[in-house]
Amino acid sequence: MKVNLDRIIKDIETLATFTATPGNGVTRSSYSHEDKVAKEYLKTEMEKIGLKVWEDGFSTLFGRREGKNPDAPVIMIGSHYDSVVNGGAFDGVAGTVAALEIMRVLHENNIKNEYPIEIIAMNAEEGETFGPGTGVSNSRAMVGTLTEKELDTVRNRHGLTKREAMKEYGLIPDLEAAKREKGSIKNFIELHIEQAPILDNNNIDIGLVEYLPGIGRYKIKFHGKLADSTAPMDTRQDAMIAASKFVLAVNQLVKSLGPGIAGMVGEMEISPNSHQFVPEYVQAKVEIRTFDVETLKDVNLRDLLMAEIKSIQEETNVEIELIEMARIGYSNPTPPSVMVKENVDKMEDICKDLGYKYTIINNGTGHDAMIMTDFAPTNFIYVPSKNGISHHPDEWTDYEDIKKGIDVMLHLVMDLCKE
Amino acid sequence: MKVNLDRIIKDIETLATFTATPGNGVTRSSYSHEDKVAKEYLKTEMEKIGLKVWEDGFSTLFGRREGKNPDAPVIMIGSHYDSVVNGGAFDGVAGTVAALEIMRVLHENNIKNEYPIEIIAMNAEEGETFGPGTGVSNSRAMVGTLTEKELDTVRNRHGLTKREAMKEYGLIPDLEAAKREKGSIKNFIELHIEQAPILDNNNIDIGLVEYLPGIGRYKIKFHGKLADSTAPMDTRQDAMIAASKFVLAVNQLVKSLGPGIAGMVGEMEISPNSHQFVPEYVQAKVEIRTFDVETLKDVNLRDLLMAEIKSIQEETNVEIELIEMARIGYSNPTPPSVMVKENVDKMEDICKDLGYKYTIINNGTGHDAMIMTDFAPTNFIYVPSKNGISHHPDEWTDYEDIKKGIDVMLHLVMDLCKE
Repeated sequence: MKVNLDRIIKDIETLATFTATPGNGVTRSSYSHEDKVAKEYLKTEMEKIGLKVWEDGFSTLFGRREGKNPDAPVIMIGSHYDSVVNGGAFDGVAGTVAALEIMRVLHENNIKNEYPIEIIAMNAEEGETFGPGTGVSNSRAMVGTLTEKELDTVRNRHGLTKREAMKEYGLIPDLEAAKREKGSIKNFIELHIEQAPILDNNNIDIGLVEYLPGIGRYKIKFHGKLADSTAPMDTRQDAMIAASKFVLAVNQLVKSLGPGIAGMVGEMEISPNSHQFVPEYVQAKVEIRTFDVETLKDVNLRDLLMAEIKSIQEETNVEIELIEMARIGYSNPTPPSVMVKENVDKMEDICKDLGYKYTIINNGTGHDAMIMTDFAPTNFIYVPSKNGISHHPDEWTDYEDIKKGIDVMLHLVMDLCKE
Repeated sequence: MKVNLDRIIKDIETLATFTATPGNGVTRSSYSHEDKVAKEYLKTEMEKIGLKVWEDGFSTLFGRREGKNPDAPVIMIGSHYDSVVNGGAFDGVAGTVAALEIMRVLHENNIKNEYPIEIIAMNAEEGETFGPGTGVSNSRAMVGTLTEKELDTVRNRHGLTKREAMKEYGLIPDLEAAKREKGSIKNFIELHIEQAPILDNNNIDIGLVEYLPGIGRYKIKFHGKLADSTAPMDTRQDAMIAASKFVLAVNQLVKSLGPGIAGMVGEMEISPNSHQFVPEYVQAKVEIRTFDVETLKDVNLRDLLMAEIKSIQEETNVEIELIEMARIGYSNPTPPSVMVKENVDKMEDICKDLGYKYTIINNGTGHDAMIMTDFAPTNFIYVPSKNGISHHPDEWTDYEDIKKGIDVMLHLVMDLCKE
């Protein structure tokens, strides 16, 4: 039972030709001509191996290999195939091709799967296309959290709303029809390039994800008073003093909440940012990451931050604003997206058997798998990404590395489909 | 006894034509052709009113109106007439023209001055020409703190050392001959544009300076460790945490030293300065200003800062470096340059008599008057500068404002020369 490297290469290279910017990376926006021809290619490849192919009410492409028990919940494998403008050939595509190749291997080996298996090929993952918070659309449609309102309010770089762009593409979206029933998906499994350099830097073949950390972001504005460096100390309203107190307060607060959370001020803009002047204004950004669902269960992080702000405001006479940087429809922070631990353990064993170097790696965010964790048992596999570069024409993953990832995923699917 | 506005305008407009960048502000570098022709103009104007004109061993131009007592110490008035590249027509020139006009008024009114009065017209004030710490050269030569070594080590934008530039200008510098004897200068009085917007913003005619604050600058480098926002809190070496602690420590320290000092971190560069990463590196700049000579007399500020740094280093595991940003040959901080209070009081009365709106203003640094305070009783007068713009073609002071400044200075000189 062999994964075929040549087919993987052909798939990825073919899909890379469906770009609006030949010679300058892959540009395959949702609902574009390139989306359409890529989808045609995928459909044809699916049909070649006898899959039942259809699109749901949101133009998500599926290819089903029936199970011995057709009424059993489905094992869903796949990823997206849209890209950012001047992106690379691997982000999303690696996982889509992985699913396709697994289906081919199951087909040629005539595997008798108890559970139905479905490829999912999504065309609207990149948030860049319609702006922050608008990505991972196909999975959101599938789990029922994408709203009609979003279709009419967000716009792409051509000025079209999502609904208008879909209409040009030939689609009247039916969000109800796109929803899957809870319980109907036995497993959701996605392979993706890492988009960070950990695996590549450490020559590791496979990254096994236990969770994608939850994420929260806040912008904090400190409004002080500009003054010359000669201003007497007791007349000052130094925005940097207030910001520094806040940096330390966040550090204390996060530490006090235990090991299930991390966070810091990693970014600060200071005005005028000259040693000659008492800072008038500082804008700081806080990023919070959460690693388990318990840490913030009985705690309101915003309230805790506001209490610190209130006290710093009183001490420094600097006015402070907190602005939530949550994406529309998301909590701030989002909870961590926890993968099925049992399957992570299985993949560890698979890696050992295959002699592949692996590590547990819990970075990243914003993948369709993240949306799926609350809806279906989900797992997520990283393959290396050269220097961590992605969303760029230089994005690169060695085909051999993709093959290794597919090997691991194939063995997991083989295990799960027979249970 | 009248100051003549037309003559002031003619002087300033004429001097502005001696520029290497016509149409783009005044560029009159030390030891340039433009320096030479400006000096010729000043010489001629001085000779017209019977002043004894000469240059010292450093090419500083003097014009002397003899006193009834020729052996008495001299009242020295003037400023510089060199400029930065693409500077304005007023920085320095306003004070040089003020001295010239005062001499003219004394001449036409046939004033019998007890003390000799000398114009000083300096051609090497701007530190830009030979780099930081190389300015205020004529006054440094006069008080004996300019070194032979400086003449051979610093270079202008044409690559010439000071000595080489002087040689091209036709001068073999004789630092010994340029020195004045301590006690030989009864008063040093300089008028200058403010180079800050306080007078202009508040519609004040005259700024009376009690002291130019001392200044100290330090660069602090915080070397942390780059980490993703998911890094566990106890593994971090967050440069921003260390920098924030330092910001607060400086604030506490300066406050603890009393009202004779101010200081803060006004500038910070953070790397990578992204909310997604634990900051790897922060570079902060501290500026310290001192207002009286007592505050730091028994205190070593560097030692106090180092003690804070040591303790923060231990708390945060972030390596911290302190780098002195002192100019060569200067202490860090420099002591404040304290003006003669009695003369400030006199000028207050003069302003009241003339109906001029004045204020006490103690900003600025880097003027020749600063060098002179430790050597001779010194006073310093500001006239407004539009929007505080200087060192720029848009530099502007209304001629009427310069006239008011000259009126005040003239009355002070009249008072002092008869004592």
